[in-house]
Amino acid sequence: MIITMKKDATTSDIEHVMKQLKERGLQIHESIGENFNVFGVVGDTSQIDPKRIEANPHVESVVRVSSPYKKASRMFHPEDTIVEVNGIRIGGNEKLVVIGGPCSVEGKEMIVHLAQEVKDAGGCMLRGGAYKPRTSPYAFQGMGTEGILALAQARKQSGLPIVTELMSADKLDEFVEHVDIIQIGARNMQNFDLLKAVGKTQKPILLKRGLANTIEEWIMSAEYILSEGNPNVILCERGIRTFEPYTRNTLDLSVIPIIKKKTHLPIIIDPSHATGDWELVEAASLAAIAAGADGLIIEVHDHPECAWSDGAQSLKPENFKQLIQKGKAIANVIGRDM
Amino acid sequence: MIITMKKDATTSDIEHVMKQLKERGLQIHESIGENFNVFGVVGDTSQIDPKRIEANPHVESVVRVSSPYKKASRMFHPEDTIVEVNGIRIGGNEKLVVIGGPCSVEGKEMIVHLAQEVKDAGGCMLRGGAYKPRTSPYAFQGMGTEGILALAQARKQSGLPIVTELMSADKLDEFVEHVDIIQIGARNMQNFDLLKAVGKTQKPILLKRGLANTIEEWIMSAEYILSEGNPNVILCERGIRTFEPYTRNTLDLSVIPIIKKKTHLPIIIDPSHATGDWELVEAASLAAIAAGADGLIIEVHDHPECAWSDGAQSLKPENFKQLIQKGKAIANVIGRDM
Amino acid sequence: MIITMKKDATTSDIEHVMKQLKERGLQIHESIGENFNVFGVVGDTSQIDPKRIEANPHVESVVRVSSPYKKASRMFHPEDTIVEVNGIRIGGNEKLVVIGGPCSVEGKEMIVHLAQEVKDAGGCMLRGGAYKPRTSPYAFQGMGTEGILALAQARKQSGLPIVTELMSADKLDEFVEHVDIIQIGARNMQNFDLLKAVGKTQKPILLKRGLANTIEEWIMSAEYILSEGNPNVILCERGIRTFEPYTRNTLDLSVIPIIKKKTHLPIIIDPSHATGDWELVEAASLAAIAAGADGLIIEVHDHPECAWSDGAQSLKPENFKQLIQKGKAIANVIGRDM
Amino acid sequence: MIITMKKDATTSDIEHVMKQLKERGLQIHESIGENFNVFGVVGDTSQIDPKRIEANPHVESVVRVSSPYKKASRMFHPEDTIVEVNGIRIGGNEKLVVIGGPCSVEGKEMIVHLAQEVKDAGGCMLRGGAYKPRTSPYAFQGMGTEGILALAQARKQSGLPIVTELMSADKLDEFVEHVDIIQIGARNMQNFDLLKAVGKTQKPILLKRGLANTIEEWIMSAEYILSEGNPNVILCERGIRTFEPYTRNTLDLSVIPIIKKKTHLPIIIDPSHATGDWELVEAASLAAIAAGADGLIIEVHDHPECAWSDGAQSLKPENFKQLIQKGKAIANVIGRDM
Repeated sequence: MIITMKKDATTSDIEHVMKQLKERGLQIHESIGENFNVFGVVGDTSQIDPKRIEANPHVESVVRVSSPYKKASRMFHPEDTIVEVNGIRIGGNEKLVVIGGPCSVEGKEMIVHLAQEVKDAGGCMLRGGAYKPRTSPYAFQGMGTEGILALAQARKQSGLPIVTELMSADKLDEFVEHVDIIQIGARNMQNFDLLKAVGKTQKPILLKRGLANTIEEWIMSAEYILSEGNPNVILCERGIRTFEPYTRNTLDLSVIPIIKKKTHLPIIIDPSHATGDWELVEAASLAAIAAGADGLIIEVHDHPECAWSDGAQSLKPENFKQLIQKGKAIANVIGRDM
Repeated sequence: MIITMKKDATTSDIEHVMKQLKERGLQIHESIGENFNVFGVVGDTSQIDPKRIEANPHVESVVRVSSPYKKASRMFHPEDTIVEVNGIRIGGNEKLVVIGGPCSVEGKEMIVHLAQEVKDAGGCMLRGGAYKPRTSPYAFQGMGTEGILALAQARKQSGLPIVTELMSADKLDEFVEHVDIIQIGARNMQNFDLLKAVGKTQKPILLKRGLANTIEEWIMSAEYILSEGNPNVILCERGIRTFEPYTRNTLDLSVIPIIKKKTHLPIIIDPSHATGDWELVEAASLAAIAAGADGLIIEVHDHPECAWSDGAQSLKPENFKQLIQKGKAIANVIGRDM
Repeated sequence: MIITMKKDATTSDIEHVMKQLKERGLQIHESIGENFNVFGVVGDTSQIDPKRIEANPHVESVVRVSSPYKKASRMFHPEDTIVEVNGIRIGGNEKLVVIGGPCSVEGKEMIVHLAQEVKDAGGCMLRGGAYKPRTSPYAFQGMGTEGILALAQARKQSGLPIVTELMSADKLDEFVEHVDIIQIGARNMQNFDLLKAVGKTQKPILLKRGLANTIEEWIMSAEYILSEGNPNVILCERGIRTFEPYTRNTLDLSVIPIIKKKTHLPIIIDPSHATGDWELVEAASLAAIAAGADGLIIEVHDHPECAWSDGAQSLKPENFKQLIQKGKAIANVIGRDM
Repeated sequence: MIITMKKDATTSDIEHVMKQLKERGLQIHESIGENFNVFGVVGDTSQIDPKRIEANPHVESVVRVSSPYKKASRMFHPEDTIVEVNGIRIGGNEKLVVIGGPCSVEGKEMIVHLAQEVKDAGGCMLRGGAYKPRTSPYAFQGMGTEGILALAQARKQSGLPIVTELMSADKLDEFVEHVDIIQIGARNMQNFDLLKAVGKTQKPILLKRGLANTIEEWIMSAEYILSEGNPNVILCERGIRTFEPYTRNTLDLSVIPIIKKKTHLPIIIDPSHATGDWELVEAASLAAIAAGADGLIIEVHDHPECAWSDGAQSLKPENFKQLIQKGKAIANVIGRDM
């Protein structure tokens, strides 16, 4: 950590700042410039809040050199984390995972049928929303418990593990009992009480990036889960909010090599929410595979025009199947299987 | 609602779309263009999800003409909502409300003392965080219940009503019992379960704008609370996330006249979180008053350099007092009192 | 074009608006709603400025149905444009083009040497800046004419066509004489006088997307060049500015299928400027190929750590070669050659 | 400047980097940490390009401590710059300047008439576009020289100095002869050749902030003009591009105290382009005055609904007059005159 003091800071001002740091066992190295006084702070600074030091009016700036996360950091955990879900392994050099299914579960029959289509097309897990975060209070809010039970039934008949979103900690027991991967949605990426709650389980957690969150904030949210004792975190990029109105969000594929460099966690891509347009999903998916993603989560629906939510971004099963076939070939080029 | 069908849509494609709308009691008006077919949909379209119609591959675009909110809309509720908190009235042409206090409650003595300073400087309510949303799991997470009780004690001694953030519905009873205004923070603006929970009380709710949420999404989150039966919503702008690194966020003051035009709800401004820099707080506050805000919520701390969180953006009591004095004069110019 | 008049607009207010449109030969279709009056405007509306109609206080909103561009639009020009540069064909189903070279030309010997390395690695064109747009007036501004002549020499010896950026119309003659593809940089995407000037030549133009410009604005800038009579426009995505600080910009690969749907122009990707980090360039390049790009423009330097500009994002020739080999295999998967 | 070397950098790697800096007369101070080696670089680093150092694969990060600008910096020029235009003084504690006029000059009679109305309402300068940057090549491009001469005529009759936008250096002589303040528009903020050209004159330059440019980049563009020898730069904030669709741009008023802290240059605000909506202009203008702006530039038109461009954001003269009256009262509160 590098602290720059203002030029007019007195020796006593400087000592006041440095004393606090020394008391926490940190070493201070000094470097005096023409216009500023610069200090290097050496030791474990992950518990130090730079903003708190910057609050001192004699401090010009504080810059972190080490990352603020430990458990998620590849520096302290060089080997890849592989998350296991009912025998399917996600991350490292494992086979890419392809998760398909509707935005919302619309009934037991519908989801059982679609699970089979996802499986036939080559998908290996089933997604489907039972509790739905919707901008409008008047929009369909999901089938709730009935939807969870329908997903469980679809798993029983298809054999596909199920992924679905948890919006509130008071439903956690239901999810732990019935669900294979618990999704934390983009809007809840910094719902810290929810992160702590799922961190106390051992369930695999699919942590979506918030629509305006930096990569560092996203990793810090993973750190919340890891620091509670749950090592099974899968990151999921689903597009960020920008000024461009054509797509629903802007898919940021550079995060794939960055996440792999900075952390040991698996990362998958959601091209459906990122683009908001089924015509763009195949291109975005193939790009994600080429960039090194560990998997995809894609919206699939038999009749997108009748979907209860997000139909515009859902693939029909035949297009989903075609995407998987092209995807396999691209995965092979970069030495992966799918 | 205006629906544009693609040029190659057949009569049967068009009828398929329009039938669904007619079944919901809506009227359809047609206008045939050279390259597209355009339809006007007339009636109460607030329950219709435009994305669901756009999912149809024969549909080019769907554009809303009416707003998607009803209870928050000034069109259906022309008079200003005035929220009353222990005798203090917020909104309309009432006196501007000035809320001051630390980012975090750091102890009973500290908050009791600061409450008196806020009051002496001219503040009329006390803020202070007891449950703190922090990016890092290793940062101070707030004093919890102890902090709530310390705030209640500070209210008892100073007479100032208290405002504090609720992060999880399982603490709602505690807040209903002890707190005067329940704050929903920016990170939870779309935590819909939390919105529904506070919507079932009659407590005044301070709803902060999410850091990457549009004005329409923000009003829709207010609509969640209103539609559950709680009319006491105060909106709070606290800056949005942009590419500019100098300030913590970019304060969007244009929202003040927009919110007043589109809704009947009071709106206050948080210049401390918006700028992240105490040296910018006075200018931002005076600007907010000049633009017509119904109040301010400002971080105040005796020793910002020792604050447990957000010290860099906290004013000392003497600067807070000076701000209020200038603010009063500006409020008078635009015909308000403060 | 759909015009919505406010509810309180009188018949005379409406007639005032419609009269102007009828005078321009457009037809008006009416659809009366409960809260608004909606009108469909039919005919060639590309010359109509929606903002001018919205200026009328009785108008609620104006929405375009047709796109505001004609010559760039695939609707009016369904077949792909193929731009030919010294026998190399760019666009359609042609072989992907790979352009390599340094950010800045640093001397004749250097660029002649690097051209050969680019060629040996499998590149088919040479890039290199002679006039450099730099944020700081104190940074290296490029070698100017000397750099252009060095590039011409490198072309002579390697046989590779050359691409370089034009910043000012007063150098146009020099570029027309010596350069094979004229690049318009991101900062000049809306330098309309420059667009008009290059539109008057028949030279291939590489038009980079502005760092905060929408896809529609970008296509409109291409329309400026096309409407002056130059059909040889190649679009180039190089990342957009967002809140994320880790990468220099955020690469928006969704533009590839969008540009191909909306226009007939070739599109190539610049992963070097988009990411600002050579370690991310290979992943971004392979992703771009998988998403359907018509080519890549990549920074290559023998000694990135000594480069006069942008060294951090430059590949060494051996990494460039490896990227091309993987890229070819991915291009083959989607039915292209590279 | 603080340079952090990677943990695995050898002594020879480090010496390679430091040698280059020492050769430029800079001093190096070392501070060795657990995971990184940190070096403080002391001396005049404004000529050093941090990206060039970061290109070295052994370098982890480079952070500037001093600002990269000199002539614009308040550190090296503590007193306010006051720009004088035909006897009107802008900046420091001078009277706030109010510039009014149409987006486009539409004819001699029109602009002469409007100049008088601007003057009668209390405006002290006249704005009006003769060369217009338009997104579409089919939109009105301005009257050109005829417009400049009409402005000059309006000045002659009203006595108001004139401000108008220069888009291309080849018109500079015309502007130097006829125009009082030369505006560099947002789209040309980084048209460095144009900046250098106007920097060679002594004309007052109104430099608008680019729609996606940081405060630092904006000051660097001012530095281009200053470093060519022209000290007469006035900065103008006109909103930045964000995700919010309601307003045309997001007005960033925090820049006012920031610019005043970092530089000695005057800063004025353009609420018309920032909001894109005349109904928001008064609130934004009063806010700007309260935040300490040195002036306003506002679009005024007799018949906004008939304006050839940007009518939606133009005030009628009577609203402009009312705004000035309220603005004077707010200026007085903060100790300024208007």
